[in-house]
Amino acid sequence: MQVTLVNYTPNPELTIVATARSSASQLTMEELWHKLNSQQISDLLKQLLDSGHLSTFEHASFTFNIQGISRVTSHQLVRHRLASYTQQSQRYVTLKDHRYVTPPTIAKQAGLRTQYQQAIENAHQLYFQMLEAGIPMEDARYIMPQAIETQMVMTMNARELLHACSLRLCLRAQWEIMELFEIIKTEIEKVAPYLGAELKPKCYQLGYCDERESCGIFPTIKPTVKTK
Amino acid sequence: MQVTLVNYTPNPELTIVATARSSASQLTMEELWHKLNSQQISDLLKQLLDSGHLSTFEHASFTFNIQGISRVTSHQLVRHRLASYTQQSQRYVTLKDHRYVTPPTIAKQAGLRTQYQQAIENAHQLYFQMLEAGIPMEDARYIMPQAIETQMVMTMNARELLHACSLRLCLRAQWEIMELFEIIKTEIEKVAPYLGAELKPKCYQLGYCDERESCGIFPTIKPTVKTK
Amino acid sequence: MQVTLVNYTPNPELTIVATARSSASQLTMEELWHKLNSQQISDLLKQLLDSGHLSTFEHASFTFNIQGISRVTSHQLVRHRLASYTQQSQRYVTLKDHRYVTPPTIAKQAGLRTQYQQAIENAHQLYFQMLEAGIPMEDARYIMPQAIETQMVMTMNARELLHACSLRLCLRAQWEIMELFEIIKTEIEKVAPYLGAELKPKCYQLGYCDERESCGIFPTIKPTVKTK
Amino acid sequence: MQVTLVNYTPNPELTIVATARSSASQLTMEELWHKLNSQQISDLLKQLLDSGHLSTFEHASFTFNIQGISRVTSHQLVRHRLASYTQQSQRYVTLKDHRYVTPPTIAKQAGLRTQYQQAIENAHQLYFQMLEAGIPMEDARYIMPQAIETQMVMTMNARELLHACSLRLCLRAQWEIMELFEIIKTEIEKVAPYLGAELKPKCYQLGYCDERESCGIFPTIKPTVKTK
Repeated sequence: MQVTLVNYTPNPELTIVATARSSASQLTMEELWHKLNSQQISDLLKQLLDSGHLSTFEHASFTFNIQGISRVTSHQLVRHRLASYTQQSQRYVTLKDHRYVTPPTIAKQAGLRTQYQQAIENAHQLYFQMLEAGIPMEDARYIMPQAIETQMVMTMNARELLHACSLRLCLRAQWEIMELFEIIKTEIEKVAPYLGAELKPKCYQLGYCDERESCGIFPTIKPTVKTK
Repeated sequence: MQVTLVNYTPNPELTIVATARSSASQLTMEELWHKLNSQQISDLLKQLLDSGHLSTFEHASFTFNIQGISRVTSHQLVRHRLASYTQQSQRYVTLKDHRYVTPPTIAKQAGLRTQYQQAIENAHQLYFQMLEAGIPMEDARYIMPQAIETQMVMTMNARELLHACSLRLCLRAQWEIMELFEIIKTEIEKVAPYLGAELKPKCYQLGYCDERESCGIFPTIKPTVKTK
Repeated sequence: MQVTLVNYTPNPELTIVATARSSASQLTMEELWHKLNSQQISDLLKQLLDSGHLSTFEHASFTFNIQGISRVTSHQLVRHRLASYTQQSQRYVTLKDHRYVTPPTIAKQAGLRTQYQQAIENAHQLYFQMLEAGIPMEDARYIMPQAIETQMVMTMNARELLHACSLRLCLRAQWEIMELFEIIKTEIEKVAPYLGAELKPKCYQLGYCDERESCGIFPTIKPTVKTK
Repeated sequence: MQVTLVNYTPNPELTIVATARSSASQLTMEELWHKLNSQQISDLLKQLLDSGHLSTFEHASFTFNIQGISRVTSHQLVRHRLASYTQQSQRYVTLKDHRYVTPPTIAKQAGLRTQYQQAIENAHQLYFQMLEAGIPMEDARYIMPQAIETQMVMTMNARELLHACSLRLCLRAQWEIMELFEIIKTEIEKVAPYLGAELKPKCYQLGYCDERESCGIFPTIKPTVKTK
């Protein structure tokens, strides 16, 4: 898997906090842009997150080039609807490279791994045999396993990144999409360190685990602190 | 493929036109609801479509149970983001039934068809062998071809149905998703005949074909009728 | 303010839970539809809410006719983007009725109330004077106070209703939009009692108050229960 | 009205076309990014627009600081739901400046203009009188005319800009929001000239006018060029 941040809104954190502040100020976002220092930016970012005022996080977007994920994971990924995707088409691009993803659980068992590799190799052969027999690419691909690699471009704003990470960095997510969002987090941290640090599983926001079984970070029991 | 309209906003066409009319009237949508007759409903619906005033089509939604589509098609389908999907999980449901889709181009060539069937059968065997060896379902499924059948529930409003059909009923769409939307159109026609009749490829709205090559319904040349 | 539920997806709660269950079942949503009893529906609905699995709540939508809210509130309302709105146009419909909203804080002070009424009355007179002088309706309305009443049709699905209520039933919301969502909650309770009961301020989901000052239901201190 | 492009995705046009091309190529978006020259970018952009392949236009976003629009126009603007808005709050910011918008039709009639100004002045006085009497800002503002100026930050991607301009640059739109989008177009042209040039009323895409009466650019009659 290779994930690169290829483009993004410049000064993403400043954009978010200057905009947030302008909503309750006589000053405009432009004026505030030149007034806020680094400490104020991180303080305001934290305040916004703590109070759940997330709408201004939409003003900063991040574009990733994603290569080497399986069709299993691309199918999961595009279910996040508040983002933009452009995926390499299997209708118009031949699956030339014999690239595919092997889950670690399969890779660990030598016998299964060999069978898995052989099965994918066989699928590839049949795929090309079908192309030669005049079957259109879009139909020949039906035989290809879901393990087959795909590439795509994804643009997601910071608010949706917070949401997607809250789900996909949870240990209940499948390993491959979790790995994807771990790299995304690392890429974000390079250009927006405060924001990147806040990309965390949902339990950190909730203060408890809402899954059936906890991984151990937070207990599953919702604290009962109601005061009246 | 089996597609059933399982639920929908009652009186979808009346809902759309009574709402549309209320926006330019002293009367409320409720009052208009009881005043409009069948002829007025179809006339108003046509007016709205002709003038591109589509926002009120969002007030009527349709829920479909979709069975027996391939993962190729479910992946295409969920790219329509302005709709709601609930797909059978391959993480939590075993792929017990050996059900899969065979593209007609492959089905026609007896030799290839046999190889195709055999390859899918082999994938299934390896899938179950992996499950027995303790591989989690979510990983074992990587070996399954994209041809494998899935089932899902989809809710889409009438505005997005118009849009999705404009793309997916075009002959440039892949045969399987076109078939899916043809059944959807048929299902809609049963409960909302005027609306159903308007679910058409995009060229009917444009008045020309914007694809590289026309299927013949409309020419690709955009009419030049600019008057000044 | 007059708010009526004019239309909705039939059997909204059954639609939500049958769909949810189908995602982790060999059975289809249609089959589950006929199997679930009332107790199972409420139990499953609660499970979904507790675990934050809210996506299937999108399959049920509700359409409201809303009359007698101010333009202050309609402006706030349409900021909830995951819903459909059709508002009475001030460009095409004359503001004939001298209807407007008076905030209780103003209504309580007799002197101010009289001035407030008079100011709105004056605005109305100027509005009609401008219409007679040939000013288009769309321009004459600039003089009308934000207090002026508007009517609209809104369709919102159950997931977004949960979200909107989490914000607008909080005491930090303005009184008028809070009143609007209280009526919406009451209307939902009539046709979907379990769902309606779950339309609550966000603190009930969080287990704490994330505003600067608590109204008293939950303390503002986020419980620190991290176990490792 | 003062509208400034304060931030945007760097190289917006290259981002759009490199992404588009990657979907039907063995190369990645990153590789294509370095290969495309200025002529190819404009050619590809035109191809995408002509064929209606607009999804990759979502990968470039633009953030505007908007000052001095009326609440009439801000209410219209936020109806474009596929964008992000942060508006100056009338709940937390006092309407200190006596700024408001006067429609040209009113400005032209000296007598009406004076009455209009006086009415707004009176509203302002009552507003401050109410604040002094302890009425909360959020309630006092009910008396303020819709003409009152507001400021906001808006982020919109290129696809939605194309759509919004197709509606708001049409002469059927109200003059104030048309003026807003004309400035937006001018701002875009400075940093993305090909894209900016394509921000046009909908008739240019349709090839005809779908309104009741044409402004004269295109006739209202949909050309009938069906060939079979």
